[in-house]
Amino acid sequence: MTFDQSILKGITTDFLLATAEEEAAQPEGSLILASVLLSLVAIYIASKIGGELCSRINLPPVLGELVGGVVIGVSVLGLLVFPETGATAEDSLMMAFLARTTDLNPNTAEAVFEAQGEVITILSELGVVILLFEIGLESDLKELLRVGPQAAAVAVTGVLAPFVGGTAGLYYGFGVPAIPAVFAGAALTATSIGITAKVLSELGRLNSKEGQIIIGAAVIDDVLGIIILAVVASLIKTGNIEVSNVLYLVVSAGAFLVGTILIGRFLSPFLVGMVNEMKTRGQLLLTALVFAFALAYIATAINLEAILGAFAAGLVLGETEKRKELEEQVVPVADILVPVFFVCVGARTDLGVLNPAVPSNREGLILAAFLITVAIIGKAIAGYTIFGRPDINKLAIGVGMIPRGEVGLVFAGVGAASGALSPATEAAIIVMVIVTTFIAPPFLRVVFPDASPEETTETSKQEGG
Amino acid sequence: MTFDQSILKGITTDFLLATAEEEAAQPEGSLILASVLLSLVAIYIASKIGGELCSRINLPPVLGELVGGVVIGVSVLGLLVFPETGATAEDSLMMAFLARTTDLNPNTAEAVFEAQGEVITILSELGVVILLFEIGLESDLKELLRVGPQAAAVAVTGVLAPFVGGTAGLYYGFGVPAIPAVFAGAALTATSIGITAKVLSELGRLNSKEGQIIIGAAVIDDVLGIIILAVVASLIKTGNIEVSNVLYLVVSAGAFLVGTILIGRFLSPFLVGMVNEMKTRGQLLLTALVFAFALAYIATAINLEAILGAFAAGLVLGETEKRKELEEQVVPVADILVPVFFVCVGARTDLGVLNPAVPSNREGLILAAFLITVAIIGKAIAGYTIFGRPDINKLAIGVGMIPRGEVGLVFAGVGAASGALSPATEAAIIVMVIVTTFIAPPFLRVVFPDASPEETTETSKQEGG
Repeated sequence: MTFDQSILKGITTDFLLATAEEEAAQPEGSLILASVLLSLVAIYIASKIGGELCSRINLPPVLGELVGGVVIGVSVLGLLVFPETGATAEDSLMMAFLARTTDLNPNTAEAVFEAQGEVITILSELGVVILLFEIGLESDLKELLRVGPQAAAVAVTGVLAPFVGGTAGLYYGFGVPAIPAVFAGAALTATSIGITAKVLSELGRLNSKEGQIIIGAAVIDDVLGIIILAVVASLIKTGNIEVSNVLYLVVSAGAFLVGTILIGRFLSPFLVGMVNEMKTRGQLLLTALVFAFALAYIATAINLEAILGAFAAGLVLGETEKRKELEEQVVPVADILVPVFFVCVGARTDLGVLNPAVPSNREGLILAAFLITVAIIGKAIAGYTIFGRPDINKLAIGVGMIPRGEVGLVFAGVGAASGALSPATEAAIIVMVIVTTFIAPPFLRVVFPDASPEETTETSKQEGG
Repeated sequence: MTFDQSILKGITTDFLLATAEEEAAQPEGSLILASVLLSLVAIYIASKIGGELCSRINLPPVLGELVGGVVIGVSVLGLLVFPETGATAEDSLMMAFLARTTDLNPNTAEAVFEAQGEVITILSELGVVILLFEIGLESDLKELLRVGPQAAAVAVTGVLAPFVGGTAGLYYGFGVPAIPAVFAGAALTATSIGITAKVLSELGRLNSKEGQIIIGAAVIDDVLGIIILAVVASLIKTGNIEVSNVLYLVVSAGAFLVGTILIGRFLSPFLVGMVNEMKTRGQLLLTALVFAFALAYIATAINLEAILGAFAAGLVLGETEKRKELEEQVVPVADILVPVFFVCVGARTDLGVLNPAVPSNREGLILAAFLITVAIIGKAIAGYTIFGRPDINKLAIGVGMIPRGEVGLVFAGVGAASGALSPATEAAIIVMVIVTTFIAPPFLRVVFPDASPEETTETSKQEGG
């Protein structure tokens, strides 16, 4: 995902400092490490306090991680803030703490702040890559293919309903011009596969029929989202849609998902054989990660998302005899990286846009109320496209698609960068993303009422509801 | 350790690109992630091929990781090169590959290259932090305290002998001026605790009496090294030694090591109780890492090294009932991070200084031959300071102290930055570091002849020789 709108901001300052600091650069290395260590300490404490509190009041721990992130982030404490949101070292409580406890000086502070933001951003992105790899490992490829048509129906409905509802409502009801209306409608189509998958996993529902439909639909939705983003972006830029570009995305996405699974199944016995021959430590985990990271890279290279590659790698390796052993080894890696992702999502969330005391927020909040309604209803009805299966919890499926999370923020970011959005519309999209992301976990907990409290705590490795 | 002599180099270029790229910055985020994923793929493949080959010819796998790093690094393929060595995106085969497979363009390449170097550097530093945490967990605090006096004797001899021998030899024998001679002598005192500990762990000798003496001596040596570096640096800068600074380092290092262990032992039952109360995933590992990273941060803040804090945290937590469980969870984390460290050490090693066809290298090589001799003999004799213990393999202890590794490179880096070293002296120090680092693992394998082949493969969790 692309949180760093720019590592280049603040570079002007760096440039001015560069000459002054050329010799003093030596100690900076250990300061960057120190600031990363401190950030991780803050992230882990926030994620554990938030997660533990939520699990005690029977909410999904991941909600607590998001809230923990909000508390240490830009909205409250300012411990963890990021350069690309326009923050400087002076806005960062962490940097103030560093300046007090180490020999950080104002000259080096900005460079350390930039580097720390960069590293934490990549760690959080590696976190969601590992999360999707783990989800892929735990998913059942056969089951996923079996529910494929249903998942596709859910995904398409869950994209079309909010898109049409949102765009038409804004255009006709609120007088928003066509392009920003289309953009806001497009932002409504996203589904944050990371948040939903994590909650399902925490509820022990990942391998239920509903869980697999949600995961399948979320993956398809992710691909649709990328295509929609490309369409909307080209619409804004050139005023018309580049059909060849869209076709390329559709074909490459399809070819990638089908191709990796076919080639992967063919390759995986070879990988397993190789691992069995290896004698040094970490042979299974590193071989698996090489496979996952290589697929994540290929996905990025063809303009898909890295997480799709990691998910496909997990699916393929989940079919091998090494699945259990690999799952056990991935758990600690996920434990240290995944919280970085969720806490960062929270930390980047600026709750300032929710403040009605600021007059300029009010129009945004009214638009937001509309968008949130469409966002929830549009996804919630998607589950009901599954006909003739009374055993399936259709509401749960729709609810599982509600969180927009980081994907929605990407839409907001691209829209803001393009200049097509008015401040009110942009704020409304962000509020919609925040609300859908934060209400989905407790909501999911409610629509899966039969999950016993014991199942909700601990680990994600239950093999079914 | 501080490998990034400057993230600021190349910033000039960035600055020129900043304005041109401000809008194109959005896709850059995913390119940085892509380049990091690709770097990790290259690092893992290099570490596994190197490690497996070495383990087959009965050499320690870590030597293979170092050599694998050399192969993909600046000396051979140029896949993994770092901005702070003066390399630009054009020197990086990885960036050329990215440019071919993604929409990386020459304008963004430099920024992506810088960011990737920064992230991989921090990952490698986190790798050595985790390695020392793991070594601390596996070490036996009581045994370490019991061998403390012997370890101190070994450390002091292993620092004094090469320092005096090296400085005197260069000054009187080779006519090197006093300051560079003192500097080169100081570089001879370092011990790379990371490499030695990893080899011992691979040989299953970490918890042998020899292993614990080596670890204890290496820790003391690390502290002594920091003090010597401060002394020499202030000698170069001001021409005399700032006694107060040295005193501060000695007192703070002592207070830190004793203090963390005392306070840690007092705190650890509280930490264990808290972990037992927690219900969400990763509770033990994250609580332990918060403790380890916080101590690593404190160590950095008082001008010690982060790895000392991580080691102390491991020692303290290794005394608790959670030791076994924690060790199991740290293994996969170490497996993904530690190879980044060793491969990066190899990748940064420029074998160009070894080429005798370059006339300017020849003087350096002659000096290097002398330094290497002193480096090996000076450490090898250190083991013989242990009297009246015929059961202890004294040669093995001395050999365990031979690798200078990253610590030696820091000396070379500080020396180069200060301008006190002639190119020949600088090259000689680097050659000495390379040779001692690369010969120590096979050498250790020889002096611990009774380690059976089975013990040399797989995991580091054997509880004694």
